[in-house]
Amino acid sequence: MSGLVLAPRSAGAPSTDDLARWRAADEAARPARLARLRDRLERETVDAYLGVSRENTRYLTGFALAEGEEKVAGDSGRFLVSGDDVVVLADTRYLEQAGEECPGARVEESYYDLPDRWPRILAGLRGRGGGPVRRVAVEANLVSQALWTRLQAAAPQAELVAADGWVEELRAVKEPAELERVAAACAVADAALERLLPSIHPGVPERDLALQLEWEMRTSGAEALAFDVTCLSGPRAALPHGSPGERRVTVGEVLLFDFGAQVAGYRSDMTRTLFVGAPAARDLELYRLVALAQEAAFDALGRAAGAQTAPTGVEIDAAAREVIAAAGHGDHFGHGLGHGIGLATHEVPSLSRRAAPAPLPWPTVFSIEPGIYLPGQTGIRIEDLVTFDAGTGRVERLTAFPREVTVVGT
Amino acid sequence: MSGLVLAPRSAGAPSTDDLARWRAADEAARPARLARLRDRLERETVDAYLGVSRENTRYLTGFALAEGEEKVAGDSGRFLVSGDDVVVLADTRYLEQAGEECPGARVEESYYDLPDRWPRILAGLRGRGGGPVRRVAVEANLVSQALWTRLQAAAPQAELVAADGWVEELRAVKEPAELERVAAACAVADAALERLLPSIHPGVPERDLALQLEWEMRTSGAEALAFDVTCLSGPRAALPHGSPGERRVTVGEVLLFDFGAQVAGYRSDMTRTLFVGAPAARDLELYRLVALAQEAAFDALGRAAGAQTAPTGVEIDAAAREVIAAAGHGDHFGHGLGHGIGLATHEVPSLSRRAAPAPLPWPTVFSIEPGIYLPGQTGIRIEDLVTFDAGTGRVERLTAFPREVTVVGT
Repeated sequence: MSGLVLAPRSAGAPSTDDLARWRAADEAARPARLARLRDRLERETVDAYLGVSRENTRYLTGFALAEGEEKVAGDSGRFLVSGDDVVVLADTRYLEQAGEECPGARVEESYYDLPDRWPRILAGLRGRGGGPVRRVAVEANLVSQALWTRLQAAAPQAELVAADGWVEELRAVKEPAELERVAAACAVADAALERLLPSIHPGVPERDLALQLEWEMRTSGAEALAFDVTCLSGPRAALPHGSPGERRVTVGEVLLFDFGAQVAGYRSDMTRTLFVGAPAARDLELYRLVALAQEAAFDALGRAAGAQTAPTGVEIDAAAREVIAAAGHGDHFGHGLGHGIGLATHEVPSLSRRAAPAPLPWPTVFSIEPGIYLPGQTGIRIEDLVTFDAGTGRVERLTAFPREVTVVGT
Repeated sequence: MSGLVLAPRSAGAPSTDDLARWRAADEAARPARLARLRDRLERETVDAYLGVSRENTRYLTGFALAEGEEKVAGDSGRFLVSGDDVVVLADTRYLEQAGEECPGARVEESYYDLPDRWPRILAGLRGRGGGPVRRVAVEANLVSQALWTRLQAAAPQAELVAADGWVEELRAVKEPAELERVAAACAVADAALERLLPSIHPGVPERDLALQLEWEMRTSGAEALAFDVTCLSGPRAALPHGSPGERRVTVGEVLLFDFGAQVAGYRSDMTRTLFVGAPAARDLELYRLVALAQEAAFDALGRAAGAQTAPTGVEIDAAAREVIAAAGHGDHFGHGLGHGIGLATHEVPSLSRRAAPAPLPWPTVFSIEPGIYLPGQTGIRIEDLVTFDAGTGRVERLTAFPREVTVVGT
C-alpha cells in the first residue's frame, strides 16, 4: 500500500461541530446523572461511591480512556462520588487530560498507589449529614480482591460495601445526544458494509473480509471498533462464537457479518447474513423465519410503546422466540434476543428468557437479533438496533442496511 | 478502497510450518512449566491454583483468547492446576476450542456460574497428600472481590489464598520457541515501519500515520497489535502518554513512533524517533545522548553476560540513567529503562529504579528504552528489544530497524 486512502466523508462520520455539541450535551447532562446516583447513595446509606469501570467513569466524570488503555492506566480514570464531590484519579501521564475533560471534578494524583492515598482522599470528602465517610460503595464486580483488601486495611473505619449495577442502571436510560451517537455509529457501519460488497467473491478468506470491513469503518468515521469483526461462512455461521479464519467464501453458502463501530464513545452492533450466489432453499427458508421472528419482536414493542407502557425483556424475547419455536427450531436459537448498547457494547437492558422481570427502561436502545443455527450446516442471524420510548410511543430502527435477501459474489 | 491489498510475505510473517512447530514446542514445554508451578504450590502448602489471566491460561493450558475477548468470555479460559490435574473452564461457545487447544487438560463447562460449580470442581481434585482440597491459591490481583467472596462462600472448607506473580515469574524465563516468536513479531514491525517511510510527508496528521502503520503490520504477518500505535510529532513527543491526533507532521520537528506486533501470541515493542527534514541542533544533541545511554545499558549487559552472572534491573537502569543525568537531563527521563515482554506487552522483569533487587532471570527478553522529554518542546526515545542469557553470554538485539539518525519527509 503506497499511502492511506481515506474514504470521502461517510454517513455517520462526525464533524468537529458534532463532537463539540455532544461534549456540551454531556457536560449539561452530568449534574442530573450525578443526582440520580446520589439518590441511590442516600437510599443505600453510603457516603461515597468508588467506580473503576471505563464506561462509568466517562458517563459520570467525562474522563475518556480507550478500551485497551484500562490495563495500563494505573489508577487513572478511577473516581469517587460523594454528596458534594466528584474526584477523578489520574497519574502524571493523565493529569492534563483529566483537567481538560472533567471540568466538574477535582483531580487527585494516584498512580498504582491508591491504598496509600486512600485515607487522605476519604478525609477530603464530606459524608452524609456532614460527618466523616463511614461507608463506601465499591464496584465489587470489577475491583480486584487484592485492591479491595488493601483499601479496607488502609482505612478500617470506612466500611466497603459491594455495589453492583448502580451506574449501569442509570446508563440504560439514554439522553438524546447519546442516541444520536449510537445512530452515527450505525450509519458508519451501514456505509462500511455497503462499500465492502464489491470485494466479496468466492475464494476470498473470511479473515480478509473481516479486516477490510474493519478498515472501511476506521477510515470513515469510526474512532474504534465496537468489537472484533465477525465474518463466518457456510457451516461456520452456525458457531455462536467464532473468529474469522482462513475459510473461503463459497457459492451456495451464507456469509454472516456481525460488527459495529464506535463514534464519540458510543457503539453500534449489526448482523447481516448474506447469500453467496443463488441461495440454498434451506437457507432462504431459515432466513424468512428469522426475519419473521424479528418482525414479531418489533410488533410487540410497537404495541407496547403505543400503550405508553413498557413490556419486559422476557416478553419481547418470547414474541420472537415463539415464531422460531413454532417452526420447530426452538433448540436452534440458544442465545438471548437482545442487549442494551451505548458506551459499552453489551449493557442493560437484557432481552432474554433470563432477563429482569421489570418493565424495560426508556428511552433506551438495544439490539434485536434472533438467529437459527444448524450445527455443521448453516447459521442465520439478523440483528438491528432499535430505540424504544414508551413515553412518546416511538420505536425506531437505527441500522439501515437492507434486511432483504442480499445476494453477493456473483 | 476497492479491495484488500495484502503485502507480499513479509519478514517475520509466520508460515503454516512455523505455527505448527511453535504449537508443538509449547505442548512439549508445558509439563515442565506446570512442574515449576507445582513446586511453588508445594512450597506454599496450597492444594491448587485458580488462574484467570489470559496470558497465564495460554502459557499453562494452551487455551488462547484474544485480548478483547476476556470481557465476553465468561468463565471460559479460567483454569485450575493441582498436583495431578489441569482443568480448563469453557462454556458451550468455547468447548470445541478448549478440546482442541488443551490436549493435556480436562475441560469443565462453566458460563458465568463458577460459584455454583465450585464445590463439585474442587471435589474432583486431589489435594496434597491425596486428601481433599483445603487451600486454593487465587490470582487476587485479577479476580474480582465479588467472585472471590462468592467462591469462598460456596466452599467454605477450601480457604482462598492470594497469589501474586507466581506464574508471571515463570513466564519471565523464555524458551527458545518463545524467543523465536518475539523475534518474528519484531521483524514484522521492522518491515512495517520501513514500508511506512515513503508516506511520511509534512502535513500528514499523526492519526493517519498511526493507522497506516497498524495496517502495514496487520496485512503482513501480525495477527494483532501488541498495543495501540503511538505517533507523536514535535512537542507532543514529550508526552510520556499520548494518543495520535490531528497534529500534522512538520519540517524541523521529530516524529516518534512506539508500536509493536503480535505473532502467534507473542509481542514486540519498538520506539523510533525520526527527523522530519533537517534536524534541529537541539534534537540531534538529545538523540545522540539517548543513543549513548542505550549503548551504556547494552555494554553493562554484555559485561555481565560474559561473566556468567546476571546484574539486577536496577543496575542496568542506572547504567543508562547516569549518562543522561551527567548531561543535566536526569529530570527529563521520568520512566523506567525497560520491561520484559512475551505473551503480554509488559511483564517481568522490570529494569528501573524501583525494580526487584534480585538478579535478572535468563534467558529472557526485555526492552531498553531510554528517553529525554522537554515538556512543550520535544521528546526523544529509542527502544529496542534484547534477549539476555547469562548462561551463554549472549546479548542480542531483536529489533533491526536502523537506530541511526533517520531523516524523513524530504
